[in-house]
Amino acid sequence: MKLGILGYGNLGRGVESAIRQNDDMELVCIFTRRDPASLHPATEGVAVYSVDEIPNMQGKIDVLVLCGGSATDLPEQTPEYAKYFNVIDSFDTHARIPEHFANVDQTAKEHGHVAMISCGWDPGMFSIMRLYGSAVLPEGNDYTFWGKGVSQGHSDAIRRVAGVKNGKQYTVPVEEALSSVRNGENPTLTTRQKHTRECFVVAEEGADLARIEQEIKSMPNYFADYDTTVHFISEEEFMEKHAGIPHGGFVFRTGVTGLTTEHHHVIEYSLKLDSNPEFTSSVILAFARAIYRLSKEGVSGCKSVFDIAPAYLSPLSGEELRAHLL
Amino acid sequence: MKLGILGYGNLGRGVESAIRQNDDMELVCIFTRRDPASLHPATEGVAVYSVDEIPNMQGKIDVLVLCGGSATDLPEQTPEYAKYFNVIDSFDTHARIPEHFANVDQTAKEHGHVAMISCGWDPGMFSIMRLYGSAVLPEGNDYTFWGKGVSQGHSDAIRRVAGVKNGKQYTVPVEEALSSVRNGENPTLTTRQKHTRECFVVAEEGADLARIEQEIKSMPNYFADYDTTVHFISEEEFMEKHAGIPHGGFVFRTGVTGLTTEHHHVIEYSLKLDSNPEFTSSVILAFARAIYRLSKEGVSGCKSVFDIAPAYLSPLSGEELRAHLL
Repeated sequence: MKLGILGYGNLGRGVESAIRQNDDMELVCIFTRRDPASLHPATEGVAVYSVDEIPNMQGKIDVLVLCGGSATDLPEQTPEYAKYFNVIDSFDTHARIPEHFANVDQTAKEHGHVAMISCGWDPGMFSIMRLYGSAVLPEGNDYTFWGKGVSQGHSDAIRRVAGVKNGKQYTVPVEEALSSVRNGENPTLTTRQKHTRECFVVAEEGADLARIEQEIKSMPNYFADYDTTVHFISEEEFMEKHAGIPHGGFVFRTGVTGLTTEHHHVIEYSLKLDSNPEFTSSVILAFARAIYRLSKEGVSGCKSVFDIAPAYLSPLSGEELRAHLL
Repeated sequence: MKLGILGYGNLGRGVESAIRQNDDMELVCIFTRRDPASLHPATEGVAVYSVDEIPNMQGKIDVLVLCGGSATDLPEQTPEYAKYFNVIDSFDTHARIPEHFANVDQTAKEHGHVAMISCGWDPGMFSIMRLYGSAVLPEGNDYTFWGKGVSQGHSDAIRRVAGVKNGKQYTVPVEEALSSVRNGENPTLTTRQKHTRECFVVAEEGADLARIEQEIKSMPNYFADYDTTVHFISEEEFMEKHAGIPHGGFVFRTGVTGLTTEHHHVIEYSLKLDSNPEFTSSVILAFARAIYRLSKEGVSGCKSVFDIAPAYLSPLSGEELRAHLL
């Protein structure tokens, strides 16, 4: 199958490298809003085009992977490019998913393409685990924890504080909370009890560190409801220890069965990821394979990860899957 | 949806109690090979019929849940009763799955029903996790561990040893092996390095304990390749501490991404179950819902858990799922 990428940031580069790990996939081109000449793909022979060229590539790409941001890019791009190709995005503004789904569904159906929104690990694999968990244990509780990992939004918030030269924020699940859930205690947890926030900050020379720390810790929505730690470190240490984009997390379903609901069960799914964008890209490609197959079957419209039978994700045949993985 | 149960052992009773936790399901009747008068269902108003009555119930049951054993019951029953109803079983002889699938597929298609085989947690949820893991991280390793939990087959083997009055065997994953996999070390593990076997035995009065222990530990296929511990306990202690049927286990996918495969990822799925048959039953019911829906869409033939889009498992609508779980 032939793939295109729109946007060559962390996610776009992740998709590019993940395509190399899937023998049935080929990267045809990368579209960018920047000057195409300024982009240097890691893959030899891959064309770089301006976004204006997208309509001209119709018929030459099986699935276009949209690697823009959820705030402003994807709400425009996904419905627009579903006119020309099967498309897939990682839209992650949970509250706006129904609206985005409806918009994409309409153009995808009108133009006979399959689109998938909100693919990755949350939304994505974690959503799938929440669904399996609640379907299998109807009487129970859900818990999702994130981390330890870098939150891009919170890191951006730190960097907006005056006197901050660079900053990175790690979301950290509270070990006691994890243990309590894992032990089937079904705790009711406040925001503060679930996660802590750990910030590594490079301050500008002469900046008032106490003021910066106070500003971060009291920032509404981002930090005020959490136990936050702020570490001031040198630029060297920052580059050495905090250059990566690790992430991960946990999805639990705890529930009961039995005539008197006397038996307890704990389902736990966890991810420990060295690179958030590369893992997200890997999930996207498995689902890109699925929507390409659905498209060949004549299906059209918008799908979520909930709508895809697992067998569609694998390059193996049904016979092979049943013989080796079932 | 209206359900029937064939076989009223641990699994059949588990299905019966799980039906009470699903508002969209109703238990119509239980079929048995025993004298129907000897069965006393826990649910009021549920009819008990001889297996001979099964053909007469056509049209009155949406899905028949087959709760027999994999060795001799299911290879006969699942294809046979797929003539009359949509059916679902928990066939778990991994090596014979392709053959069983083919047999069931044929009659299900001929009679316009949907059948599902090998539903539960392994095969079942663990299979799904192996599939998602390998599709998402194509360069990687799979690990499945079982336990700590009761192995019925190994417990039966113990009870066949002369001088043994009662016995139960727990399969226990080796903590060092779990840690090594979890740390992304990609170990190559022998059978002995993955699991230990712990046996609790009630001996007959005057039996030669040393001989029993030796016979168990050297039993080929069952124990010889493992580090096995044998504890002799009283009948009272056995009844008090070993009456349950707990189980569980772990599925890992570890893999790499990145241009130089420099980033490591660990996916871990685990189950901690107080009751193996009740959890298996709960999984079966979620998939029974799915095949009932497929049947209403006009689908027929045999399916595995790989063929079912997660959305089919939940009583919630697509809109509700996207709004609340995605």
